Amino acid sequence: MAQDMTLLWGSGSPPCWRVMIALEEKDLQGYNQKLLSFEKNEHKSQEVLDLNPRGQLPTFKHGDIIVNESYAACFYLESQFKSQGNKLIPDSQTEQALMYQRMFEGSTFYDKLNTVIYYEWYVPEGERHDSALTRNKEALTTELKLWEGYLQKLGSNTCLAGPTFSLADVIVFPTVATLFRFGMSAERYPNLGAYYALLKERPSIKASWPPHWLENPKGQDTLKDI
Amino acid sequence: MAQDMTLLWGSGSPPCWRVMIALEEKDLQGYNQKLLSFEKNEHKSQEVLDLNPRGQLPTFKHGDIIVNESYAACFYLESQFKSQGNKLIPDSQTEQALMYQRMFEGSTFYDKLNTVIYYEWYVPEGERHDSALTRNKEALTTELKLWEGYLQKLGSNTCLAGPTFSLADVIVFPTVATLFRFGMSAERYPNLGAYYALLKERPSIKASWPPHWLENPKGQDTLKDI
Repeated sequence: MAQDMTLLWGSGSPPCWRVMIALEEKDLQGYNQKLLSFEKNEHKSQEVLDLNPRGQLPTFKHGDIIVNESYAACFYLESQFKSQGNKLIPDSQTEQALMYQRMFEGSTFYDKLNTVIYYEWYVPEGERHDSALTRNKEALTTELKLWEGYLQKLGSNTCLAGPTFSLADVIVFPTVATLFRFGMSAERYPNLGAYYALLKERPSIKASWPPHWLENPKGQDTLKDI
Repeated sequence: MAQDMTLLWGSGSPPCWRVMIALEEKDLQGYNQKLLSFEKNEHKSQEVLDLNPRGQLPTFKHGDIIVNESYAACFYLESQFKSQGNKLIPDSQTEQALMYQRMFEGSTFYDKLNTVIYYEWYVPEGERHDSALTRNKEALTTELKLWEGYLQKLGSNTCLAGPTFSLADVIVFPTVATLFRFGMSAERYPNLGAYYALLKERPSIKASWPPHWLENPKGQDTLKDI
């Protein structure tokens, strides 16, 4: 039981979901948690700001130690609970290298997704340009083709760094799930579709599935033409 | 000697510099290297694309293993050469947590710098807005104040995660050096100034100092009013 841990989080936020998957994988259930609302601006509340000067979720605390960045929290949990739950950094040199490479490419992947689906949120009305949105969509398509190729090369039923689930999947799966939630076609991206189908049944991922996606299983169609 | 390693890099690129600092810290001198020119678009050359489909620098190869993302290469080198050179991940739980937290905040820090100093490079002419540039500058100022506060809290003559040089410094120092190269005032940001002064004399950093900064010691003044 992880009663000395506290997570402040938002539903459907890939960074929050990463930390929740890592906690499940490391058998750290039973932590204190509070679901906050981005719509109500609760990530800018004093409760968050006291722990996280950036006013962002996730905000994560273990005893007196605060680790808010999602990548940081995942590394920290793996390092502090090495022999508990599932090992998330492979021993093999080749798999480890691929894991590191993919998890940091995952940051670019997530950014390219965000600049499309949250364009209107990020860019004030008077500064929006169709040309920018078109370029962002093209960049996302190029990115998606890269990941299709990565998965194709590894063969079927595989995780991102090889046969074993690793930090690369902890980081990247929430991005892939968000793509499908926003209407991306699994027919057009069959390798990402197979990866999504394989991992969405994994216990750590099912246990941390965004609650508002469960309540309202129909997503958006923003990415149907991507 | 690291004759089974190859680094393709560009001068003054913080991501390239990170990998070069990590190589020095791990006593991995003598690697094959090739300095490429961003101006001549050499990062999009076939030589790079063969190893790095993103056409970016750094591009890094160790034997048959390719790890191009700068964070990934730094983690990989530390993991594969744990007992060689300087240890870059502290043992202490508190320092380790702080190291992870700061190195990933370092990614936001770098992005906020880039959106100011490379605004015209990133944004096509017809899409530029003074309001966006002003907002980007304000975001950079807010970010700088955060880091000033982090350093102030740690006290003088310290690295980013405590007394010991760590991956947090490998990642963030090149961003700090770039700030000063672009004219940021050490009087206005005294803690960042002291951090810069402390680390610029470190052997790994001196050995990897951007050659075009050495040739032309005077930088720009883009950030003089920040």
